[in-house]
Amino acid sequence: MEGVDGSGKTTQLQLTARYLLDRGYEVVTTREPGGTKLAERIRNIVLDADAAVNPRTEVLLYLAARAEHVEKVIRPALDAGKIVLCDRFADSTMVYQGFVRGVEIGKVKALCAFAADNVQPELTILLDAAPEALLQRRADRGVQDRFEQEGLDFQKKVRDGFLLLANADPERVKKVHALQPAEAVQAEIQKILVEAGF
Amino acid sequence: MEGVDGSGKTTQLQLTARYLLDRGYEVVTTREPGGTKLAERIRNIVLDADAAVNPRTEVLLYLAARAEHVEKVIRPALDAGKIVLCDRFADSTMVYQGFVRGVEIGKVKALCAFAADNVQPELTILLDAAPEALLQRRADRGVQDRFEQEGLDFQKKVRDGFLLLANADPERVKKVHALQPAEAVQAEIQKILVEAGF
Repeated sequence: MEGVDGSGKTTQLQLTARYLLDRGYEVVTTREPGGTKLAERIRNIVLDADAAVNPRTEVLLYLAARAEHVEKVIRPALDAGKIVLCDRFADSTMVYQGFVRGVEIGKVKALCAFAADNVQPELTILLDAAPEALLQRRADRGVQDRFEQEGLDFQKKVRDGFLLLANADPERVKKVHALQPAEAVQAEIQKILVEAGF
Repeated sequence: MEGVDGSGKTTQLQLTARYLLDRGYEVVTTREPGGTKLAERIRNIVLDADAAVNPRTEVLLYLAARAEHVEKVIRPALDAGKIVLCDRFADSTMVYQGFVRGVEIGKVKALCAFAADNVQPELTILLDAAPEALLQRRADRGVQDRFEQEGLDFQKKVRDGFLLLANADPERVKKVHALQPAEAVQAEIQKILVEAGF
């Protein structure tokens, strides 16, 4: 599940997990960065670091957390035949550390493949909406968090990055319009899942 | 300055720094992993992690620390015309994470180049000795530390790795026999420095 902050990833991840459980699948839900004790420690370093932490350090830290997450959580679940639903993964690294922070995209891609030992999502749901509209929706609801702190230009760059990735790989990345009511978004996701054979 | 634990790197780094200072150079001495506050935090995570931390996580963490170290300490010193003497650098990553822990050497090399943004040592002193002999010397002196804990087979693999790298790049990596008295080791190092134009 990918998308800008505030696009509804957490809600949709939970709804999707329930749907798949009801269909008889075993499901593991997890998130990045984090997912293991060591990965959470790494996450704290990244979040504590002042804004001046250089982009290479940042991407290497996120990917160290991913390597641990894949090895300890994701791969064992896949090997046991479970479905893993993950809130953010390599596409977020490509977008935030590549497109936004400027680490060369080819290098980010190679680093991601290395860190995940070539484990890749079979299907990615991109919850997409114009950041201006998401901002308005959040203001209407009285939500105040990181979305606002990062600023609109930042969120626009992030959205553009995700759209580039989605357009480059339409077989894997399915765009869903995120400004609909949660039930309508979930209905679209379930349609995508059925088409993908779930 | 590279070599197995107990080969005298710290002592020789200090003696070399004094020699270069006496010759009028500005010198910065530093060490890996570490060298900055963020890098020390990363170092602690690596050292705290149980032995089961996977090799990809480990190499990515070490390299995150290196990226920070290069950006905050090494490059600014080089840009200011100073000589940087570093206790361990990319060769240690190649040896410990590559040869010993089994991460593919070509990938370790590419990761090292990325993390250091292509900053590389102009000259590397490899303090070399048979681990058995170093072990005996340390026993004679009553020293007890990581060297013994890791075991002799481990230290032999490390030594073999360093020798492979030295033989592959004799222009940059100069071997010095580490079992001589410290003054004799330092005299060899100074001879190498003079030949290299320092």
